[in-house]
Amino acid sequence: MSRHLYAAILAGGSGTRFWPMSRERFPKQLLEIIGEETLIQQTVRRVLKVVPARNVYVVTNAFQVETIKLQLSNWKDELNFVLEPESRNTGPAIGLAAFRLLRRDPDATMVVLPADHVIKGDGKFKQAVAFGYRLAQQGALVTFGIRPTGPETGYGYIQSDTRALLGTFRGLSGYKVRRFVEKPDLKKAQRFLKSGGYLWNSGMFVWRADRLVEEFALHQPALLKGLQAMDKMIETGGQAAQVVKRYKRLKSVSIDHGLMERSTRATVIPVEFSWLDVGTWSSLENLLPRDKRGNVMTGNIVDIDSHRSIFFTTKRLVGSIGLSDMVVVDTPDATLVCPKSRTQEVKLLVEVLRKRGAPEHVEHTVVYRPWGSYTVLEDARGYKVKRISMLPGRRLSLQMHRQRSEHWVVIAGTARITRGDKVFDLGPGESTGIPIQAKHRLENPGSVPLEVIEVQYGAYVGEDDIVRYQDDYGRSP
Amino acid sequence: MSRHLYAAILAGGSGTRFWPMSRERFPKQLLEIIGEETLIQQTVRRVLKVVPARNVYVVTNAFQVETIKLQLSNWKDELNFVLEPESRNTGPAIGLAAFRLLRRDPDATMVVLPADHVIKGDGKFKQAVAFGYRLAQQGALVTFGIRPTGPETGYGYIQSDTRALLGTFRGLSGYKVRRFVEKPDLKKAQRFLKSGGYLWNSGMFVWRADRLVEEFALHQPALLKGLQAMDKMIETGGQAAQVVKRYKRLKSVSIDHGLMERSTRATVIPVEFSWLDVGTWSSLENLLPRDKRGNVMTGNIVDIDSHRSIFFTTKRLVGSIGLSDMVVVDTPDATLVCPKSRTQEVKLLVEVLRKRGAPEHVEHTVVYRPWGSYTVLEDARGYKVKRISMLPGRRLSLQMHRQRSEHWVVIAGTARITRGDKVFDLGPGESTGIPIQAKHRLENPGSVPLEVIEVQYGAYVGEDDIVRYQDDYGRSP
Repeated sequence: MSRHLYAAILAGGSGTRFWPMSRERFPKQLLEIIGEETLIQQTVRRVLKVVPARNVYVVTNAFQVETIKLQLSNWKDELNFVLEPESRNTGPAIGLAAFRLLRRDPDATMVVLPADHVIKGDGKFKQAVAFGYRLAQQGALVTFGIRPTGPETGYGYIQSDTRALLGTFRGLSGYKVRRFVEKPDLKKAQRFLKSGGYLWNSGMFVWRADRLVEEFALHQPALLKGLQAMDKMIETGGQAAQVVKRYKRLKSVSIDHGLMERSTRATVIPVEFSWLDVGTWSSLENLLPRDKRGNVMTGNIVDIDSHRSIFFTTKRLVGSIGLSDMVVVDTPDATLVCPKSRTQEVKLLVEVLRKRGAPEHVEHTVVYRPWGSYTVLEDARGYKVKRISMLPGRRLSLQMHRQRSEHWVVIAGTARITRGDKVFDLGPGESTGIPIQAKHRLENPGSVPLEVIEVQYGAYVGEDDIVRYQDDYGRSP
Repeated sequence: MSRHLYAAILAGGSGTRFWPMSRERFPKQLLEIIGEETLIQQTVRRVLKVVPARNVYVVTNAFQVETIKLQLSNWKDELNFVLEPESRNTGPAIGLAAFRLLRRDPDATMVVLPADHVIKGDGKFKQAVAFGYRLAQQGALVTFGIRPTGPETGYGYIQSDTRALLGTFRGLSGYKVRRFVEKPDLKKAQRFLKSGGYLWNSGMFVWRADRLVEEFALHQPALLKGLQAMDKMIETGGQAAQVVKRYKRLKSVSIDHGLMERSTRATVIPVEFSWLDVGTWSSLENLLPRDKRGNVMTGNIVDIDSHRSIFFTTKRLVGSIGLSDMVVVDTPDATLVCPKSRTQEVKLLVEVLRKRGAPEHVEHTVVYRPWGSYTVLEDARGYKVKRISMLPGRRLSLQMHRQRSEHWVVIAGTARITRGDKVFDLGPGESTGIPIQAKHRLENPGSVPLEVIEVQYGAYVGEDDIVRYQDDYGRSP
């Protein structure tokens, strides 16, 4: 592949339709839905067969970036991260990545990939990218089209202009796009399937970054102006707050609607690899093995006589009897029960939770941080119990809490503890307390993960009662 | 009421059909299903309108007695407890209580009441007992019959001999029983309902204890012999192990099948109070208020468009969409989902759990002890985290663990801690550790409950790693 080829992985979505496994701050690309890697890990692994890690740009936001870095820790020293100050749909996100690339390489060609798709057939994927790269050099805005396998109403469609063949490559053909069609009704979808020439819109693209900018100029001049201004601010070391302010004023528009549907250069390659946008819980049926009664069973389940149902659970026990075409999803703090036919409405449920201010829509009981993660075991009035897992060589900020004392029991590994002027180490089965308002730090000086049970006690035990004196991860006091 | 009237409350059942709210060691009489008291609390409160607390005998077993005593702590210094060494059905349990009563009062008349029934109409209940007492003095074995309100197939029936009126009292009549009928099919139940003269068998009885013994002699002579031998052993201070051994050899038989169906003295009073044997989750529909779509919603639920469904949950969040005629029960460690029509099969599910050795069938994450309770927050390999709640004036045994250290953080109240030779007090926000193999004790010297977070660390953290030096509750080392 050309050294001018780059990948932009879109990983800024928020989790709604896979609640309660996904959360606003823990969307589905971070889930192990199929296999032993999360969707974003699988996406990166696939893309690394096409471009080197230093050519990969992960576009995400401040809420998710630490979790993503942890998940991609195998490669994260080489990977590049583009932070969206706020979610403004795919148009601005891709634009931001394009400007970043152009500063590095005026000949940059980018393959744009959502982080949460399931793809099988890495060889065929690689061929499609190679062909896309070629067409992009001729100025095409390339999109990968998926040959429909059924009258799917959940996807957008692309009608290819089969008389306008723009090139071929190892059995693949590239056509001019005739038109984009929004999610159709069943009747239309059946017609599309029958007539041929219609493809599913996969949301994967290949284009030259400079060409993309030209297309922005033609179809989204205001957005382009905003992106240029932002890029200049970033280049000249502008203040973060101002960059965020500018980004928030950008038009929130998808790349499909804002550009592809308007451009004369839209080109589609019907691809050969198998593809699935894991859209809702019911789509798991097509991904995971089913038992002889047609059930998908992941987790700790005792079932009597259920049929064609989907169970996706963690450690807690779920008992079920005689369910038909149901979905049961269970996490440590929340459970979902709904018929397979109504999994689209999970989105609405999450909206209700958001309005209620329910914490179960925002994040999991497990929260990822640059130094590791913590799991809330109990959160009550006046105290909180957490299990802290700290990576080797990492440490918390040197900090102080105005409202709470903290008590640590080491469960595994070695804890180096700073308390006031003293520094001391504790091993498994040892414990200590940090008085209210004492300056302190927890550190893992060892080579294995440190596990600590922390009990916080105080009138207020919120995460925001923290004064940071020093932080390895540049977090504000 | 006569001073010779006593109540025997049967509270030895094990929890299967109300799993996961009930557990083997936490059956449904211990649940707050309706109102703010548990079923056994309601039963005792009702019976205390008829007899004084010192005349009440609660028949249960060693696994449940501490939880029951906690729930009945308002009255427990006066209440009497009869411990079944093992569950042998209602025949031996009632027999055991009868012998105990006869030692106290040769004229004892006992009203026998299951601990897990829902009854409305305390005045009418009292009248029925008063009438039952009168008939019992004439030698009758009285059972309370419930007038059917529908063709119920889940109950046994009693056919009364309406031509054999044995007496009347304030509008109530007592009849000779013609026959007992096991749970009928729907057709039979409809016929019973139509014909009149058939009553639901409530499992509530009134008889003189001496008469009961005579009936045992007539119909269950072997069982009687066993009960007499046991009673003698207990009276003469026989060894507990031998008493248990003897009890285990008793025939496991219900009082209905073993005695009532065979006796010529079986008498039925059709009663006027409203009665419900809360048999399965689906019976909650008749007990709890329903919303406008017919749902029973207890707990933390976010629902979109469900109908005629039953939700019974605790603190965790349950999200549901479009359920019809379903049951969802959620507890901290286990969730049940099944159609209302199949709640009888919960029993089978629990049987599967039992065979698997799943802890979720035995007890809750909350476990009651004579000194209070503990809740398991996390149980993992090598450590365990608990929240301990200790009643004022109570204390743990003076104890030692061979395999684990323990770490205590006080959350509320005052902890008096014995560690080796030292005794010291800790307040909220203070913590300490008990090294492995150190003799120790936790005590609540205060007047408010003590709350402690305990972290256990060790190669083995099972409850049976304990050496007791002294115990206020007579538990063995």
